[in-house]
Amino acid sequence: MKRIITVTTDFGVKDQYVGVMKGVILSINCDAVIVDITHDIEPHSIVPAALIIKNSYKYFPEKSIHLVVVDPGVGSARRAIAASCNNHFFVGPDNGVFSLVFKESSDLKVFELENKNYFLEDVSSTFHGRDIFSPAAAHLSNGVSISKFGKKIKDPVTLFVKDYVIDNKLIRGEVIYKDSFGNLITNIPSRLVNKDSEIRINDILIEGISQYYSSVSEGSLLAIKGSTGNLEISVNKGSAFKFFNIDNLEIFIKNK
Amino acid sequence: MKRIITVTTDFGVKDQYVGVMKGVILSINCDAVIVDITHDIEPHSIVPAALIIKNSYKYFPEKSIHLVVVDPGVGSARRAIAASCNNHFFVGPDNGVFSLVFKESSDLKVFELENKNYFLEDVSSTFHGRDIFSPAAAHLSNGVSISKFGKKIKDPVTLFVKDYVIDNKLIRGEVIYKDSFGNLITNIPSRLVNKDSEIRINDILIEGISQYYSSVSEGSLLAIKGSTGNLEISVNKGSAFKFFNIDNLEIFIKNK
Amino acid sequence: MKRIITVTTDFGVKDQYVGVMKGVILSINCDAVIVDITHDIEPHSIVPAALIIKNSYKYFPEKSIHLVVVDPGVGSARRAIAASCNNHFFVGPDNGVFSLVFKESSDLKVFELENKNYFLEDVSSTFHGRDIFSPAAAHLSNGVSISKFGKKIKDPVTLFVKDYVIDNKLIRGEVIYKDSFGNLITNIPSRLVNKDSEIRINDILIEGISQYYSSVSEGSLLAIKGSTGNLEISVNKGSAFKFFNIDNLEIFIKNK
Repeated sequence: MKRIITVTTDFGVKDQYVGVMKGVILSINCDAVIVDITHDIEPHSIVPAALIIKNSYKYFPEKSIHLVVVDPGVGSARRAIAASCNNHFFVGPDNGVFSLVFKESSDLKVFELENKNYFLEDVSSTFHGRDIFSPAAAHLSNGVSISKFGKKIKDPVTLFVKDYVIDNKLIRGEVIYKDSFGNLITNIPSRLVNKDSEIRINDILIEGISQYYSSVSEGSLLAIKGSTGNLEISVNKGSAFKFFNIDNLEIFIKNK
Repeated sequence: MKRIITVTTDFGVKDQYVGVMKGVILSINCDAVIVDITHDIEPHSIVPAALIIKNSYKYFPEKSIHLVVVDPGVGSARRAIAASCNNHFFVGPDNGVFSLVFKESSDLKVFELENKNYFLEDVSSTFHGRDIFSPAAAHLSNGVSISKFGKKIKDPVTLFVKDYVIDNKLIRGEVIYKDSFGNLITNIPSRLVNKDSEIRINDILIEGISQYYSSVSEGSLLAIKGSTGNLEISVNKGSAFKFFNIDNLEIFIKNK
Repeated sequence: MKRIITVTTDFGVKDQYVGVMKGVILSINCDAVIVDITHDIEPHSIVPAALIIKNSYKYFPEKSIHLVVVDPGVGSARRAIAASCNNHFFVGPDNGVFSLVFKESSDLKVFELENKNYFLEDVSSTFHGRDIFSPAAAHLSNGVSISKFGKKIKDPVTLFVKDYVIDNKLIRGEVIYKDSFGNLITNIPSRLVNKDSEIRINDILIEGISQYYSSVSEGSLLAIKGSTGNLEISVNKGSAFKFFNIDNLEIFIKNK
């Protein structure tokens, strides 16, 4: 059955791990269409993986299956899950990696992966991406009902991700992700900011939102409505991350 | 419809951007076959992207669609284009990224991407790769006529790329690209060089062209006919780039 | 014909080389399903490529074709081969890169790639991945018999990879690969080690095998049964490679 399976991991692409997962999937469903989201999640970092899958899944066709393997607790008692919501499917460890997706959904169903009929024969304690998660995603893509995998659970692990705060006319937020261009993605929705807003970040003041990167001169700082719907801080043809070179940045916005 | 869409960007693969573009394409044409050329173009660098697509497209089946998104002017007044030539299709920003392909063609047709029916519903000002270019490529792959996208244009932006110069029996060229092995690719066609040529680069003299890398000893410099048809300077089992460690290198060739 | 072709190279993904190989394959068989294993083999390093393909191929469906291009001798007299064994096919240079696969097989057949009908028209001396190996893999995937490519050979190049040694109750082995997490993969099969074993590496003693990474505290060293079947040395949520920061590490195991 032709179905899309996206794959997001912290495995990197130097080793055979991602290729092996694809081999396992194609051995179970040779018609699966496998799409990489990224394999360059910072090792063991659940928050960026959670942001990336939240910002990606809805661009794929309905009924796509999203496999996320960022799994520092592999082999321990942490549960393995498959979930359905918003007409998409999700497979991975129960460590909060899907909690930003689940939060947005009204029709969430989560099942524990327990049924060994859908595992590889030998399950290692270090590579459930190969032995449990890829087989589950592949069987789902073959039309196996998600309820076959195991019992329904009601308490999937939830990530704590800091939200922005509005205090009178002041919005206080922070940088939650930096992309590979060095754009700083904040947790403040763009719709709360306008072209007259005063944006302060690390004592630097940005006057209003720019419409595009090149509306300021090369190397200059700007604020812009990012493609994920949140406010971003950027440098035209440069890196805002390098500009500040600080990891934890707060943003203050004053609307007039 | 089964059609190949190649993708070349400066997005890197750490973030969700490339995956999201593929999701958009597959949502419009679930039978598209997507092939990555590279996503590691130096950010905002149009010349290497132009060289890479010129050296790649012809190895794909006719009617393939080549999506290139290296787009520092995204959101500004720079045009978005779709073009056909040499039995291939090209989609991306009108910033010269296709000009080395267009230069080689006799049947070039270029259209501006204006028709919002072929855009995503909401167009951001930072990610036309997702909102304009991927949908255009996907609709093309579904058989939509290229003339449906917008008006024909006659003046696509042209890149200036330095050419080699022949002066009597002396050829003067330069290194235009370094690959990840550290091979230095010049702008001099291999056919102008022979095994008796004297090749001078940064005051080092190379006597003639080698037939293969291992025809000189390990760590030694050589000149060789590169796979793109141009002369390359290499080090056997090493990096010619590290050997010189200089960015702008001129090459002088004296044919006897 | 729908057939899987895996691709493993040391080309990196910055340049067009891997994309061009895929274009060549799809031009010959547009139904081939191409899967990347990795392109980040250390340039010219045959041993890690040999380990990676050995640890990958068996997870793919039978009759998959495995293309490996780590080829420092490209263009020289080194032979090009296609082989079949264990119900899989292998295409690449005859430099030992497949020898760990071949060692495990009882039904090995190796053929030299000589028949120019299955090469690209112009064969460069620097890029046989494009001109010889990709076409061979694609023609194989179209059902061309492997014996059509050239004469049978009996002496493919064999790699020398150090084996572990058992001396009374002491096992002496070494680290043969480090993955991108910094896990150190040894040449000692996990089945020879048990939870009471004393594991000594660079004068540090590890008491027994852990069941999973997080069974020791964060940042602590552990020994674990790795996913390839061999003993691995790891750090929970960290890098064992950085812990030791030495390239050649010996392991001594004393079983009680």
